[in-house]
Amino acid sequence: MGDGVPDVAELQRRLGRFAAARGWGQYHLPKNLVAALSVEASELLEIFQWLTPEQAAAVMSDPERAPRVEDEVADVLAYLLQFCSALGVDPLAALAAKIERNELRFPVGGTPPLDA
Amino acid sequence: MGDGVPDVAELQRRLGRFAAARGWGQYHLPKNLVAALSVEASELLEIFQWLTPEQAAAVMSDPERAPRVEDEVADVLAYLLQFCSALGVDPLAALAAKIERNELRFPVGGTPPLDA
Amino acid sequence: MGDGVPDVAELQRRLGRFAAARGWGQYHLPKNLVAALSVEASELLEIFQWLTPEQAAAVMSDPERAPRVEDEVADVLAYLLQFCSALGVDPLAALAAKIERNELRFPVGGTPPLDA
Amino acid sequence: MGDGVPDVAELQRRLGRFAAARGWGQYHLPKNLVAALSVEASELLEIFQWLTPEQAAAVMSDPERAPRVEDEVADVLAYLLQFCSALGVDPLAALAAKIERNELRFPVGGTPPLDA
Repeated sequence: MGDGVPDVAELQRRLGRFAAARGWGQYHLPKNLVAALSVEASELLEIFQWLTPEQAAAVMSDPERAPRVEDEVADVLAYLLQFCSALGVDPLAALAAKIERNELRFPVGGTPPLDA
Repeated sequence: MGDGVPDVAELQRRLGRFAAARGWGQYHLPKNLVAALSVEASELLEIFQWLTPEQAAAVMSDPERAPRVEDEVADVLAYLLQFCSALGVDPLAALAAKIERNELRFPVGGTPPLDA
Repeated sequence: MGDGVPDVAELQRRLGRFAAARGWGQYHLPKNLVAALSVEASELLEIFQWLTPEQAAAVMSDPERAPRVEDEVADVLAYLLQFCSALGVDPLAALAAKIERNELRFPVGGTPPLDA
Repeated sequence: MGDGVPDVAELQRRLGRFAAARGWGQYHLPKNLVAALSVEASELLEIFQWLTPEQAAAVMSDPERAPRVEDEVADVLAYLLQFCSALGVDPLAALAAKIERNELRFPVGGTPPLDA
């Protein structure tokens, strides 16, 4: 990409090379990776658990918490992509398909489901 | 992209339009979105919780579970992207930076940390 | 107990008999039980994820959500107790010991850690 | 109790006094406590995420991991009890009622649901 940020496919390749070079592939079983994904999502949640909604919305102005948020976002995405690589799931295609299904399932003007 | 799968930025725009059209933005506070992200990651984990490692590795050959995996992957990515949109975090840049830090932190040939 | 509510040890025995009678013991490995515990904790969180702090505090006045909260509390406790049974951990003794350590670690009048 | 281990009601009182003495009650809103509960359950899961089922079953023989397991069990129980205190839920009664419902829902000899 023009600004030097790699796309999802490139990040998946880098993650695969990183793990392979260190012999971590033996641990990267799908069941382990999905556990790690949920653990990392909870570590991101942990940053917010005692904050008010207002403090949470301003978290990127907090010089101590902002880099932790970015770090945990990276971990969540890393395990999501490694999980998808291990199982041959295309996360972008999965999300595109889901949005299309949700367009039909939750028509504009319908009642809010709050669990989409 | 050439095969018709949108990239992350395009998915973030679609998710933003989807929520805005339904008036869901009021619920999409960062603290709520990170809770939803962790809930969705657990729903993905739930599919695997009673499986052996071998059954888990073969999950995409299971016609009942495979679409559930794709559906939950989509949900995890959806909330991760909406969380990042709400806070102005670039998830791809965050992961690229993290991989670079980890290259230094875990040199090839070092001892396995199992928590990278 | 006098009011007819069983204590933790009695609940552990009932859970053990329930699983054994159904042949579920083969699935109740510690790694599976801890995954199930975290999944159930997330299902409890899911009830609250879109609520304001005020709505969350009043959840037991909501005739639709109150029984769901009790049901998920039961599931969290069930998997915590089954996990402890499987590994021989005494959860009440573990918590009593932790409170004693925390009395020393966080003296009254100290600064709030927010992660105790 | 005879062996000096307090029961659930006594632990709830101790947790209440501990938080009150430190002025932490302001943070202990139900929505925050349920987030903390799910975070602690994930911290317990984290100990197991890269272990094989066999390694996981032997975790209490590991002098490094065994005290971490007890520590995280204590944290999960602490937040579960504080959450229940905040909302007036009786966790033991909730679990006793759930076991009775499950006796009817999953008769002995029925097919395994794997999500009880």
